[in-house]
Amino acid sequence: MPTSADVARLAGVSRATVSYVLNNTTAVRISEPTRRRVREAAEELGYVPHAAARSLRAGHSRMVLMPTPHIPAGPLYSHFLNELQWALRRLDYTVVQHGSVGMSGDEAARAWAELRPVAVLAPGAGTLGPRGVNVLKRSGAKAVLTLGPERVEGAHALLMDQREVGHCAGAHLLSGGRRSIGVIMPAEAGFETFSAPRLEGVRAAAEGTGARVVPLGLAYDEQDAAELAARWPDLGLDAVFAYNDEYAMLLMRALQDAGTGIPGDTAVMGADDLLIGRLLRPRLSTVHLEMPSGQLLAEFVDRVVRDPGGAPEVHHLLGSTAVPRDST
Amino acid sequence: MPTSADVARLAGVSRATVSYVLNNTTAVRISEPTRRRVREAAEELGYVPHAAARSLRAGHSRMVLMPTPHIPAGPLYSHFLNELQWALRRLDYTVVQHGSVGMSGDEAARAWAELRPVAVLAPGAGTLGPRGVNVLKRSGAKAVLTLGPERVEGAHALLMDQREVGHCAGAHLLSGGRRSIGVIMPAEAGFETFSAPRLEGVRAAAEGTGARVVPLGLAYDEQDAAELAARWPDLGLDAVFAYNDEYAMLLMRALQDAGTGIPGDTAVMGADDLLIGRLLRPRLSTVHLEMPSGQLLAEFVDRVVRDPGGAPEVHHLLGSTAVPRDST
Repeated sequence: MPTSADVARLAGVSRATVSYVLNNTTAVRISEPTRRRVREAAEELGYVPHAAARSLRAGHSRMVLMPTPHIPAGPLYSHFLNELQWALRRLDYTVVQHGSVGMSGDEAARAWAELRPVAVLAPGAGTLGPRGVNVLKRSGAKAVLTLGPERVEGAHALLMDQREVGHCAGAHLLSGGRRSIGVIMPAEAGFETFSAPRLEGVRAAAEGTGARVVPLGLAYDEQDAAELAARWPDLGLDAVFAYNDEYAMLLMRALQDAGTGIPGDTAVMGADDLLIGRLLRPRLSTVHLEMPSGQLLAEFVDRVVRDPGGAPEVHHLLGSTAVPRDST
Repeated sequence: MPTSADVARLAGVSRATVSYVLNNTTAVRISEPTRRRVREAAEELGYVPHAAARSLRAGHSRMVLMPTPHIPAGPLYSHFLNELQWALRRLDYTVVQHGSVGMSGDEAARAWAELRPVAVLAPGAGTLGPRGVNVLKRSGAKAVLTLGPERVEGAHALLMDQREVGHCAGAHLLSGGRRSIGVIMPAEAGFETFSAPRLEGVRAAAEGTGARVVPLGLAYDEQDAAELAARWPDLGLDAVFAYNDEYAMLLMRALQDAGTGIPGDTAVMGADDLLIGRLLRPRLSTVHLEMPSGQLLAEFVDRVVRDPGGAPEVHHLLGSTAVPRDST
C-alpha cells in the first residue's frame, strides 16, 4: 500500500507538503507547479490520504453523518437529500449515510458515535433520544441536529411538523362541507412517526367544528383496500385523508370499484403532490409539501460546527399547501 | 471526552479488557459479570470506542461502503438495500452509504478510499472504473464489487443486466403481433445507465423479426407527454415500452387524452411491477424484476473479504418476467 512518504519521494517534496496539498490546506502557501507535482505523484502511486488518520491527528473529522430513514424515501425527500449532500460537499464536508434499521435509540447513537462524525443530522424521534444526543456530543460531535416531526432534548431541531400536513388536508375537506373524515394510517412498519402527527393535525382542524375524525388502518395492497371499500358505506364517512398520494390512489380505485362515487359520496385527499396523482380520474387532490432548501441547511450545519456553544435552536422547515383537484 | 482508561478505572479492569469487551472479541474468555461491569461503566461515562482508531490498530476496518445511487431508488431497490444492510450487520459489518453526486469516476473512488472501507459495493459503470477499483484495492479494500448493468475490470460483478428487462418487454410485445415498438428514454439525468441497455434488449428481441424499434425521449412531466401524444399518430407505432411503470402511466394517460386507444391502437408496457400500475384502466402490463437476496449477497461480500485472493467473479442477479395485463 503506497504511503505519503512514497509520494513525497516521487514528487521531491517533504511529507508535510504532501499532506498540505492533498488535504487542500489553504493556510500554507504552496506554488501551483508543486501542488501539481504532488497530485500527479499521488495519482501515479494510487495514494489517497486516510480520512480517519487525518481526523485522529486533527482531533476532529469533516464527516457529517446522516442516518438513513427507515422507510423508503419518496422522490421529494430524495431530491432534498441530494441537494443537501451537494451543499455540504461544497463546504468540504464528507456526507456519510448510516443505516439504523433494527437498532434501538441509544444503540444507534453509539454506532454512529463510533465513526466520530463532526455533525449528525438524524431523522429524529424514534431513532435518537436525549441520551443518544449526549453520547454523540461526548464523542466529539459539534453539531447534533434532528430533522423530523419532534424536538429531542439537547439537539437542534429542524422541525418538519407533519401535523401541518394533516391540518392542511383537514381544513380543506371541512371547508368543502365534509363532516366525517376518515384518516388512513398505513399498516406497514415505520410510518407511525409520520402518520400519527398527520392524524393529530386533522383532529386539530376538526376541533370545535363538530366534525368526526376516524382513523382507519390500511395495508398497501389491493385486497386490504377492497375490504375497506366493501365496508365503507357502513362507516358513514363523506371524506378521507389517505396519508399520501399512493395510499389515496389505492383506496380511491377500490372505492370506485365498489361503487362509491368520488367526490360525490366521498372526497379523497392525498399528500406529496406526486405527478401520478394527476393521472387518475378524478384527478387527485393533495397536499403539496415545501421541503427546506438544502443550501440553507448545509450553511446551518456549518455555522453550528464552527460555533458549537449555543443553545439548541428550533427551526420550522416544512410548508404545506392544499392543492384542490377533482377528487374533493 | 471519556476514554477507555476512564472506563477501565471505573470497572476495575485493564484497558485491554475494556477493548475486548466493547469490540465483542470472542477470542478472549471474559466472564459475563465482568463484561456487564465494563458495559455499564462505558454507558455511565458515555464512552464509545473509536471505529477509526480501532481499524488503524487492526490494520483493517469492518466498514462496507455502498455509494448511494444517483437517481432516487424505487421501492424495490430500497427494500433490497434494507435487507442487504440487515444481513451485513448480522455479519458484524458497519454499512455506510456515501454520496458521489457530481464526482467523476476516479474522484469518487478516491473519496471512498479515504474512508478505508474493507469492502465497496458500488453501483458500477459510470461511478467506478478500473483505475478506481485499483485505488480502492491499494488503499486496503479487500472486496470491490459492482452491482449494475456492466462489468468493471478488476472488480467482482454482480450483474443486474437491464438488457433482460428490455428483452422481456420486447418479446412480449412482439408475441402479441406488434411490429413497431417505441422505447421511452427518460430525458432526466442519470437514467442512461439503465435506459440504454433496456433499449438494447428490445432491439435484441426484435432482431430478425423485421419489427421496427424507435427510441423516444420523454421528460417526466405532463406537458412533454402531451406533446409526444400529439405527434403519436405520425410515428406509426403500435406499441411502446415506456422504461418503467411511472413513465408508462404518464404516457398512457396522455395517449388516452389525445384519443389513442390502449391497447387497440397502441400497446403500452411498463417495468417494475408497481402496485399503482394496477390501479389504472386499462391495467398496466409490466415487467416484474426479481431482485437478488440481500442475505446471499452479504454472504458473498463476507466470503470475498475473508479470502480476497480469488479472480473476479461474475454473478447474474436480475430475473425478469413479463406480467401481461390489459394495456398490451
